[in-house]
Amino acid sequence: MMTPENKPVDSETINVLKNRQSIRKYASAPVSDAHVDAILSGALRAPTSSNLQAYSVIVVRDADTKAQLAVPCGNQQHIVDCPVFIAFCADLTRIESALQRNGHDIENNNLELGLVASIDASLVGMAAYVSAESLGIHGVMIGAMRNKPEDIAEILGLPQRVYAVFGMCLGYPAQEPKQKPRMPVTGTVHYQRYDAAASLAVIDPYDAELKRHYDSIGKESDPHSWTHEVDKKFSPRPRNGLRAALKERGFDFM
Amino acid sequence: MMTPENKPVDSETINVLKNRQSIRKYASAPVSDAHVDAILSGALRAPTSSNLQAYSVIVVRDADTKAQLAVPCGNQQHIVDCPVFIAFCADLTRIESALQRNGHDIENNNLELGLVASIDASLVGMAAYVSAESLGIHGVMIGAMRNKPEDIAEILGLPQRVYAVFGMCLGYPAQEPKQKPRMPVTGTVHYQRYDAAASLAVIDPYDAELKRHYDSIGKESDPHSWTHEVDKKFSPRPRNGLRAALKERGFDFM
Repeated sequence: MMTPENKPVDSETINVLKNRQSIRKYASAPVSDAHVDAILSGALRAPTSSNLQAYSVIVVRDADTKAQLAVPCGNQQHIVDCPVFIAFCADLTRIESALQRNGHDIENNNLELGLVASIDASLVGMAAYVSAESLGIHGVMIGAMRNKPEDIAEILGLPQRVYAVFGMCLGYPAQEPKQKPRMPVTGTVHYQRYDAAASLAVIDPYDAELKRHYDSIGKESDPHSWTHEVDKKFSPRPRNGLRAALKERGFDFM
Repeated sequence: MMTPENKPVDSETINVLKNRQSIRKYASAPVSDAHVDAILSGALRAPTSSNLQAYSVIVVRDADTKAQLAVPCGNQQHIVDCPVFIAFCADLTRIESALQRNGHDIENNNLELGLVASIDASLVGMAAYVSAESLGIHGVMIGAMRNKPEDIAEILGLPQRVYAVFGMCLGYPAQEPKQKPRMPVTGTVHYQRYDAAASLAVIDPYDAELKRHYDSIGKESDPHSWTHEVDKKFSPRPRNGLRAALKERGFDFM
């Protein structure tokens, strides 16, 4: 029997994650159906709350469909270019059916049901991502799938009670970007209790570190800081119409 | 250079996921700080939307804190028993600070901001889970952390703009449960477009398969079907107070 002292502290999985970087340029090599099957065979064993399995996955290879999807996603070219695109959807259709079979409905569904399905889809998506990475297949998650849920639903034929939480471009990499630094763990990892001062104390050092990173890769951006990037992106409240759009899709978030 | 034909279709990561099962009984062997550090070193490289890093992680080993956390989580004994418990939190504090530094605020924040932080935390949590599994450290995710967000905030000292999306018990396994079957992929994986008929067609076969599984492990449960379990759990709209509780925590979901 292994003692704690000789248990491994390293693994392929951890190394894959530690070295990962979002990849937006892909080699021409195709990603085979066998590879997609393998990726999903791992992903679909992700934990799911109360065994709800409140997700669906849509695998898109068709060039025209990918080109259509890119438009509401801010014309991200890598969606067009990637050999395989996967949409990870929150899906209440089977839950609705289960309730209806028992004389109930899913109208006026609450924040918990919307969240639990969104989290379920996110767990499957993350498990797919790390599974792909472990095969040398890299990519990038596409949160912009939430820009215009109604357009995405039209393109992918999503029924009521289904929305795409995020998408994922996958392919063999044709670029080697320098890994972007993350905030110091002294701000994001706490022990026993949350340390509010430690959380905020990492902002200034991280602003400086991110500037050094951007300078090192020659990124044209002013003023080159995390705080300005976040303010620029989130002070205008992006996707302010999301709640109304998802209500139209059958997610009330009440 | 590898050709598509000889690229691997199997990996440690995928095998870990395919064989995983939630573990609720733990051996007495401790999980070392080095192991927790390794798990988080992988997890904190999970993709994060727009580099927001809208999450915080709280590692709990203290027995009294775990005992306190178990109470609002429906007295789940494995929270008390596990050597390490980790809370994965959506965290808007650093984003609020970034906005305030630029003369803006985060009041009346919308569904997108609440979702993006919840998804960010979920990606880190899933990456931590698979990282732990790859080291032989198993466990179970605890969605019941959303039962009473205010109690969890009190126990963990969470400030405004932080809530625990889910928790995770981790330890070396002291049980080998039989893996619960998942829905047939013909209902959860679609190609090019969503197939609504295929999605619903898996419900009856899955009800039957889950009954066979429960019978095989001698589980006392009536009437032994997914549809009844889901109806029983979700027709009463569990966590109906979540939206109001999270609004108190600074998440408006508008």
